[in-house]
Amino acid sequence: MEQQLAPFRDAVKQQGDLVQQLKEQRAPEQELNAAVAELKARKKILEAKELAQQPKDDIVDRAKMEDTLKRRFFYDQAFAIYGGVSGLYDFGPVGCALKNNILQAWRQHFIQEEQILEIDCTMLTPEPVLKTSGHVDKFADYMVKDSKTGECFRADHLLKAHLKKLMSDEKCPAEKAAKMDDVITQMDNYSQQDLAELFVKYNVKSPSTGNDLTPPVSFNLMFQTSIGPGGNTPGYLRPETAQGMFLNFKRLLEFNQGKLPFGAAQIGNSFRNEISPRSGLIRVREFTMAEIEHFVDPNEKVHPKFSNVADLEILLFSSKAQTSGQSAHFMRLGDAVEQGVINNSVLGYYIGRIYLYLLKVGLSRDKVRFRQHMENEMAHYACDCWDAESLTSYGWIEIVGCADRSCYDLTCHSRATKVPLVAEKLLKEPKVVNVTQFEANKATIGKEYKKDAKLILDYLSVCDECYISDQEKLLNEKGKFTIETEGKTFTLTKDMVNVKRFQKTLHVEEIIPNVIEPSFGIGRIMYSIFEHCFHIRHGDEQRTFFSFPAPVSPYKCAILPLSPNQEFMPFVHQLSEEMTRNGVSHKTDNSSGSIGRRYARADEIGVSFGITIDFDTVNKTPHTATLRDRDTMRQIRAEVAVLAAVVRDLATGVLTWEEVEKKFPIFEGQETNRKD
Amino acid sequence: MEQQLAPFRDAVKQQGDLVQQLKEQRAPEQELNAAVAELKARKKILEAKELAQQPKDDIVDRAKMEDTLKRRFFYDQAFAIYGGVSGLYDFGPVGCALKNNILQAWRQHFIQEEQILEIDCTMLTPEPVLKTSGHVDKFADYMVKDSKTGECFRADHLLKAHLKKLMSDEKCPAEKAAKMDDVITQMDNYSQQDLAELFVKYNVKSPSTGNDLTPPVSFNLMFQTSIGPGGNTPGYLRPETAQGMFLNFKRLLEFNQGKLPFGAAQIGNSFRNEISPRSGLIRVREFTMAEIEHFVDPNEKVHPKFSNVADLEILLFSSKAQTSGQSAHFMRLGDAVEQGVINNSVLGYYIGRIYLYLLKVGLSRDKVRFRQHMENEMAHYACDCWDAESLTSYGWIEIVGCADRSCYDLTCHSRATKVPLVAEKLLKEPKVVNVTQFEANKATIGKEYKKDAKLILDYLSVCDECYISDQEKLLNEKGKFTIETEGKTFTLTKDMVNVKRFQKTLHVEEIIPNVIEPSFGIGRIMYSIFEHCFHIRHGDEQRTFFSFPAPVSPYKCAILPLSPNQEFMPFVHQLSEEMTRNGVSHKTDNSSGSIGRRYARADEIGVSFGITIDFDTVNKTPHTATLRDRDTMRQIRAEVAVLAAVVRDLATGVLTWEEVEKKFPIFEGQETNRKD
Repeated sequence: MEQQLAPFRDAVKQQGDLVQQLKEQRAPEQELNAAVAELKARKKILEAKELAQQPKDDIVDRAKMEDTLKRRFFYDQAFAIYGGVSGLYDFGPVGCALKNNILQAWRQHFIQEEQILEIDCTMLTPEPVLKTSGHVDKFADYMVKDSKTGECFRADHLLKAHLKKLMSDEKCPAEKAAKMDDVITQMDNYSQQDLAELFVKYNVKSPSTGNDLTPPVSFNLMFQTSIGPGGNTPGYLRPETAQGMFLNFKRLLEFNQGKLPFGAAQIGNSFRNEISPRSGLIRVREFTMAEIEHFVDPNEKVHPKFSNVADLEILLFSSKAQTSGQSAHFMRLGDAVEQGVINNSVLGYYIGRIYLYLLKVGLSRDKVRFRQHMENEMAHYACDCWDAESLTSYGWIEIVGCADRSCYDLTCHSRATKVPLVAEKLLKEPKVVNVTQFEANKATIGKEYKKDAKLILDYLSVCDECYISDQEKLLNEKGKFTIETEGKTFTLTKDMVNVKRFQKTLHVEEIIPNVIEPSFGIGRIMYSIFEHCFHIRHGDEQRTFFSFPAPVSPYKCAILPLSPNQEFMPFVHQLSEEMTRNGVSHKTDNSSGSIGRRYARADEIGVSFGITIDFDTVNKTPHTATLRDRDTMRQIRAEVAVLAAVVRDLATGVLTWEEVEKKFPIFEGQETNRKD
Repeated sequence: MEQQLAPFRDAVKQQGDLVQQLKEQRAPEQELNAAVAELKARKKILEAKELAQQPKDDIVDRAKMEDTLKRRFFYDQAFAIYGGVSGLYDFGPVGCALKNNILQAWRQHFIQEEQILEIDCTMLTPEPVLKTSGHVDKFADYMVKDSKTGECFRADHLLKAHLKKLMSDEKCPAEKAAKMDDVITQMDNYSQQDLAELFVKYNVKSPSTGNDLTPPVSFNLMFQTSIGPGGNTPGYLRPETAQGMFLNFKRLLEFNQGKLPFGAAQIGNSFRNEISPRSGLIRVREFTMAEIEHFVDPNEKVHPKFSNVADLEILLFSSKAQTSGQSAHFMRLGDAVEQGVINNSVLGYYIGRIYLYLLKVGLSRDKVRFRQHMENEMAHYACDCWDAESLTSYGWIEIVGCADRSCYDLTCHSRATKVPLVAEKLLKEPKVVNVTQFEANKATIGKEYKKDAKLILDYLSVCDECYISDQEKLLNEKGKFTIETEGKTFTLTKDMVNVKRFQKTLHVEEIIPNVIEPSFGIGRIMYSIFEHCFHIRHGDEQRTFFSFPAPVSPYKCAILPLSPNQEFMPFVHQLSEEMTRNGVSHKTDNSSGSIGRRYARADEIGVSFGITIDFDTVNKTPHTATLRDRDTMRQIRAEVAVLAAVVRDLATGVLTWEEVEKKFPIFEGQETNRKD
């Protein structure tokens, strides 16, 4: 197998080396971009080859699984009776319970265990905030429209499909095909102008009608609305929850009594107006995120609890492995940080915690990997970034991002609002510093410039020493200097301003915290859980089940009377009440149908355990009933009075099924005879 | 006291009688409306007089409370560093934890205990859905604009303020003042045209600038956006979560194996673009709701568990009491249903359950009442409606609505989508019915009308017997008849359609379920909890605390080492770890500051319990620490090893503080001496 992959690995390595070489030679940007694009393309081919070697029985039967999800209303298209809206889904009772449990496990695992400060901000966001964050200008895809029907297409997707079609034509000369292949490879690098020219060059038409297309335009992916009645406060639905933590940084720091480090988190919906959403839950227009912003002193990027996760062996796919044609491989987290594969132990700690969380909610160990962003795919503000990816029938998909965003966000908002978003750090020893400041004469400036005076005073208060000294020279030589602020020019004379120098003893220094940001896509995690937990019963193609771990299972227990016989009902009620009191979600199924059929129905939605009330329950004392484990289908028999507590402990993970089997007698056959 | 109120009670009663009389006489609508408006005004005056008699020490010091809420970051204005947006709030760590716990208690109390089907639908909603529900046309307020600055005002609020100002002028003749008073009283009844005339008549100008105002226009309170890139799918942010349950009715019924009754629920955010939001959390633009839709057979509006709540004594304010000048009074729920004060026992059951929930999360028994809508304030589709109201410094405010919406919503969506939203009910005995149907000749209709044929066939399939017989007559007499559908007219002849009559044996009948809808405003409930739980320590004006019930408390326990002495830290870590393992949210405060001051800080945010590690903890074995109850400030001393479990049981309500005091020795003074 490895032999078949070797040439593809070599191809990647060659190209990776070339990229490296070009970087060292400081090659022109265009050349470098082209080489990187080619590297990515080769990586993609290698990954496809690797995936093709996956054993067939390890790939989920997606059609069968999706049939179950729809039929049992885990989720379904929203507004279906009105014809549906693509990219919007409703979660039914089972899906909703699963989602709530995934979020509850998240709160337990992160908020509680890490003592993170959870906040809850609005989704409606005024424009200036998202202007600062860059979303108004950059959160966009290129789009073309059918000039007659107005149907919209994502430009890159359409161009790619068009070229593939042309290339597949046997008559297409090899030379032309190679050029097209080149275009496809470079797709991510094209500007609006480039795309426009390519659409003309290859004469692309609307695939639905054959009509002409409008030139590509940038389409912002945020949903826009207007806040308030005046129409003069444009706003958007947030594209991420992160901004809320940055904007509340000062309050959060104060809440934490001024101390770094601390984590803030938010769980909530975000929105993305996809041009043409597909692939089910993977790409949707409204989705739930859970994001953490861990604020840390940039000089102390060391996590005190890192040793707790250092021994985890995790499938890591480093940037270096990617550019040299290697596969992801298991590595001890402690080694990865020590060897500098992972930038620092705060990032390393979160990678470990994310990994533990993903396993806890049901992902398979060998289908989760952490892939490092290559230098050129990283956002310009990030200094290291690892995506948790899960292996699904769509290939490897990103489910959690974990980036070191340095001080980018706080700096931007601080600059835009003039509110300092900094922390104070006590110096070990007081420090004496020289201060150079403008000293403004408010009266004369006010007299000369009236209401613009404040602008000038604000400007003077933030100038640095170097600039002040330069102006001082002008002031001495010519008696005046000019400043420009907010598009206006002002002349300042000696009677308005002079320069003051003095020494100051500092006990604290101001620092702009760095931010480590783990960002979870809950819908994608949930979809991955579906795929990793979906199984077909050995020997019975028709019987399927979800092996959700008990803590996230939508229902912990099914209560099944053997038949509709009324004698069973008091026990059903007793168990149901005790489970409610113990906070155990459960489902009573007293419909007709054999006990086997009803167990199959419960298995289909991943109910963890099942209790059957039979004639022995009614006729013998102490009253006992059977308890069944979904995954193994093994059963024990125990007193009715203890069953609710046993299921509760199984559901919270305090007790394992193996321990239950040791504690209670195994039950082999179902008692189905009518009482004597 | 009652004596002072008597004349106001009489005034209400007189007017109530008049309204009754006018109704009986079928008086003109305008006359009746005026009388009802006067009745409402008199009720408002009576309520104001009643509230004025409330003991002063029973009214919360709102300024003091809001200072605490802001200072400790329970919540605060959103986007403050960008200048803020009115009507939008962010919840900080304490507020967010409280809100999560309120929702968790809601899930436990309703979803789990009532086995309700929770779903999770999108907030983005396409226009046709909200057109059907009536929100596109009717969910609006009238607005006027400053003709120069564009500033917007709610028309009714502005007109009222303007008239009040005119009336307060001493020179205003009594006759004119009376007329203005009349206008204020009738404010809710005015049409757009009426308002426009009144603005001209009273020469209303912009209160900020004195500029002219534009005539009133209807302003829809939904946030509009556009779904997808084409700009041809207008959508809104949902104004309520209810529609999601109606649209998914068929799937939910199927999930419930076709059986009625069942409840569906949804927790999530809704949006309302208020023209000029005020009053803090009470009127906001983005808010969390929790809504239940209980679907029930209209012929079986009886709740099997009603007896569980029948003995509750609840403050009820019936429609009859309101129109006859009486106060709300405590009534046994069972009696209220029996006497027909509450329409049916399903509604009665939910009123009881809502009441229990509100007390559980911290509202005061005597500050919660259920007020019935008077006939004329009820939505046209509702047959009975009770609002849970809480008494706050803003007066009585609505926090939960509980309406019997009959079959209104399902019928509307069914009509709009042509998808039957019905349940099937097995008949006790099969029923033979006569059926009259059009029998259409698809071929001839198709030939004549081409692609309109489907429209015609759809139309013919839903006609009732009476209509069919009428058309049959025409068909026999003239050989044809015409139909109108979707704006088009079609002529149908004998070769296209004939009438068929036959008998059919029915085993099931189709019924459109009725809906009982309890709808919770989480923000308003939370605000009420703040007011009802805010207290000042007896004898110390500066010390305040929130007496949140432990299950909703943001933090269950504070862990306080007596001083920063390092010897205390192992015990702090041990307790913190055990609490995390037990799922007990807690906060360690090892800052400097006296133990009393740190307890005061914990009390201020409503931490339920506190543990102090002192020198006895360190020096004596077994190691013990003190546990303190926030409300009574009493303390016990117990072994460190058992404390986490004790707090857990206190937090879940399994254990009461009284029981804890019986089990462990009372601790009187804090050990503050340094060890020997």
